[in-house]
Amino acid sequence: MEGSQTKDQPGANNSGNSNPDYLRLEAHFQKINDLQHIAAITGWDEASMMPAGGGDARAQAMSTLNVMIHQLMTDSDVGEWIDGARAGTELDEWQTANLREIDRAWREATCMPEDLVAANSRARSKCEQAWRLHRANNDWQAMEPLLTEVVSLARQEAQCRSESTGLAPYDAMLNLYEPGVTSEQIDAVFSDLKTFLPGFADKVVNKQSRDEVLPISGDFSDVKQKELGMALMSSLGFDFEHGRLDVSHHPFCGGVPDDVRITTRYATSSFISSMMAVVHETGHAMYEQGLPQGWRNQPVGKALSMGTHESQSLLMEMQACRTEEFMQYVTPLVQRTFLGSVSNDPAWGVDNLHKLYTRVEKSFIRVDADEVTYPLHVILRYEIEKQLISGEFEVADLPVAWNEKMNSFLDLSTEGNFADGCLQDVHWPAGLFGYFPTYTLGALTAAQLFATVQREIPELLESIRQGDFTPLLGWLRTNVHSQGKFLSFDELMIAATGETLNAGYFKSHLEARYG
Amino acid sequence: MEGSQTKDQPGANNSGNSNPDYLRLEAHFQKINDLQHIAAITGWDEASMMPAGGGDARAQAMSTLNVMIHQLMTDSDVGEWIDGARAGTELDEWQTANLREIDRAWREATCMPEDLVAANSRARSKCEQAWRLHRANNDWQAMEPLLTEVVSLARQEAQCRSESTGLAPYDAMLNLYEPGVTSEQIDAVFSDLKTFLPGFADKVVNKQSRDEVLPISGDFSDVKQKELGMALMSSLGFDFEHGRLDVSHHPFCGGVPDDVRITTRYATSSFISSMMAVVHETGHAMYEQGLPQGWRNQPVGKALSMGTHESQSLLMEMQACRTEEFMQYVTPLVQRTFLGSVSNDPAWGVDNLHKLYTRVEKSFIRVDADEVTYPLHVILRYEIEKQLISGEFEVADLPVAWNEKMNSFLDLSTEGNFADGCLQDVHWPAGLFGYFPTYTLGALTAAQLFATVQREIPELLESIRQGDFTPLLGWLRTNVHSQGKFLSFDELMIAATGETLNAGYFKSHLEARYG
Repeated sequence: MEGSQTKDQPGANNSGNSNPDYLRLEAHFQKINDLQHIAAITGWDEASMMPAGGGDARAQAMSTLNVMIHQLMTDSDVGEWIDGARAGTELDEWQTANLREIDRAWREATCMPEDLVAANSRARSKCEQAWRLHRANNDWQAMEPLLTEVVSLARQEAQCRSESTGLAPYDAMLNLYEPGVTSEQIDAVFSDLKTFLPGFADKVVNKQSRDEVLPISGDFSDVKQKELGMALMSSLGFDFEHGRLDVSHHPFCGGVPDDVRITTRYATSSFISSMMAVVHETGHAMYEQGLPQGWRNQPVGKALSMGTHESQSLLMEMQACRTEEFMQYVTPLVQRTFLGSVSNDPAWGVDNLHKLYTRVEKSFIRVDADEVTYPLHVILRYEIEKQLISGEFEVADLPVAWNEKMNSFLDLSTEGNFADGCLQDVHWPAGLFGYFPTYTLGALTAAQLFATVQREIPELLESIRQGDFTPLLGWLRTNVHSQGKFLSFDELMIAATGETLNAGYFKSHLEARYG
Repeated sequence: MEGSQTKDQPGANNSGNSNPDYLRLEAHFQKINDLQHIAAITGWDEASMMPAGGGDARAQAMSTLNVMIHQLMTDSDVGEWIDGARAGTELDEWQTANLREIDRAWREATCMPEDLVAANSRARSKCEQAWRLHRANNDWQAMEPLLTEVVSLARQEAQCRSESTGLAPYDAMLNLYEPGVTSEQIDAVFSDLKTFLPGFADKVVNKQSRDEVLPISGDFSDVKQKELGMALMSSLGFDFEHGRLDVSHHPFCGGVPDDVRITTRYATSSFISSMMAVVHETGHAMYEQGLPQGWRNQPVGKALSMGTHESQSLLMEMQACRTEEFMQYVTPLVQRTFLGSVSNDPAWGVDNLHKLYTRVEKSFIRVDADEVTYPLHVILRYEIEKQLISGEFEVADLPVAWNEKMNSFLDLSTEGNFADGCLQDVHWPAGLFGYFPTYTLGALTAAQLFATVQREIPELLESIRQGDFTPLLGWLRTNVHSQGKFLSFDELMIAATGETLNAGYFKSHLEARYG
């Protein structure tokens, strides 16, 4: 593993390389990276800063920029340079991995005919915009034809990608977000969780119903919530020399590794949701800030996969920051922020805050779900979207299928309630098929990584109790962040934890915290 | 003039045009406009949002984007299309003007070799970022090599532009900001002002020394200053659906016509400097917001020149908003903002505030200078930069030359005080040689335009007393903003005021207000 440490990397554009086609590829992908940098910052601006009236001109400008990025990505020279680089002088291990990732990116971009790319873009844009309105109006009838068009084009896309990669159509879509992972592997993990979680959730809900949880109230102004958020970000290890915290409608992590922009939103009724959003996005942000210095502008130096990204946010949000030790650290900070001083009020005590933070509830909305029920929301979507792409299932069947699975997994009916049912997520209107499973792969990965750090650093929880996240971040920097895409997911898990993904760690974690 | 009104413009990309090369140019310059939009927003971000650690990656990304814009601008097809469009079917008057401006832009861009464009972009970005730190530390030694590199590249640029335009090197730079104006014309105006102003300033300072001016104190928090600034922006006519107000080291107006970003900075010791910066930048912003709707994405629909731009900010800041009538409007607003209610305290009265607002003082900092001494700051920079570009003068000579001229014009020494001397402006670190004189051309233009509006709308000052800027803005929209680059500066001044630029209006204005 030595060669994969940041300090040992020669970095992109190193001299002494006598493979001219490889060097051409590096220069070309640096250029693409630069335009993606600009697009990322402008995208953040659109979500967090832009006045509404700027939208039309911005959409026009972004479309031009995205077309230019796509043209660079599909440049016919790239294919020739890839062949030339492979036939050329031997490359070192990071350069070889970079060439592999360049090839993957190029094939992903070029396997789609231009008219399908354009049709996808139009249908998704139309469907996503309509979704905002139709979800608000609970109007399934209006959404159905738009979504049918999106699914029909997504099937064509899956077919193209299947022919290009040799994978099954749905797996070819999944591969965009989680390279190397197949639905066979996911089926194995998810069928285990599907058996375990519904009964376990019932048990936890029943157990927690006997707890007394006190409501909390206070001055939850935006200013104070931001103060708390920034204090926590600093403790966790976020580098404010290379990033910021702002506000947007939906929390996200944007920007670039050298300048990571995270956002949250503030509710005046409670600080908890915003505080945990900040912790979550900080996990994403620190992954970006820790990507290999010498390679972060090349394909091999980007984040490994969506599941790995989510593992970094969930490791902070769910594993580290819902422990009793974290609550012991954060409680006085929370009290000083919102009450002005440390307090003995039991509602603001460690125990009550910890109960609030680990509450389990069967509910309709995925994004608001706790870590016990969240995977069931994901499995429901995964099972449906696989069948949508394979054609076993039509869009018209969606409401019934959704309702059946909600009844079966969470004892909830969504009959006639499309807004809180099959219309709740933007992913399908936006054409993101194959994305949902990465949320739960992230949760499982987070549990396995956190169990490993605790084993390797026995004083870990004690350091968290003191607000010192340096040991945790150091371990993640070495074992995950600085690896970029150098290793495959399986290789990274073996190197970091000694085994491939094992859902047992997640189940043990739930048993220990909630059982 | 009818054909030049916004409502009568057919707009770019109009159908029925049978000049295919002209249509190709319009499509091409729309694309350039889109990338310039992205560059403008990212530039605003760099100055107002970006954490310092993001600078290196940003400089690299902006350099790539600027090179791509430059490549589009210098595309060899453009030259052929210009020839074809000229030889093609007759164009309407706005299309003809657009073709003229496309040709000007193309010639300005093609005369520069690509490696010089890239070297300029890198050196300026680096120097500008370093300037923020080194100015704060009064560190001339650290700035000198960075600025030397910028000047050396600017000399090469001036040489290129001189060869392309047939103008002298400095005039070729000046032409980028003030098309059609030569240093010979400027020398004539400036030598007049240089004779008049020092003596006049002494007279005013002497006269004002007999006034009793009361100091004011209050809670000048950023939040309250921003509240006042935004209230004033709304009164003046700034459209917040298409713009915002933020903070940066140096106030500026950035963004794009549909999304104008202005900035200011807040001092806790006084609200006056920030309030006037906001009024100033709002003048710039409203020019952008008023550019012709149908043409703002094409070269002919951009602002006419930097001097014209400055005339719009100075017309608001100096002409309209330092009148007694404006003070009568703004005084209760200022009192309510900082005192919580209207007050009879004489320090906070109209007379005292007006005295504070029209105070003349020989001081170090250009951006804080009153309108009497401001032109002397500009003339100082103009004389120095002409010699820097010509090579009569090296960067190493700058501190001494600055000190000598400050002594001669304003009786002040800047020996050893670089932060308040030759390091005070961002312009030279940013490579903006030829820009400074446009500030004073703007002041002269503003005086002439404001004298004309007052003549044409006799109730103008009364409406300002009531906080109603609609008549003023309406006149500017019709006579200046909606014209874009349709007319030349001389044509616009004749159409709007009946004569070409006449410095007499500025001197009369100073005599009337201060004499």
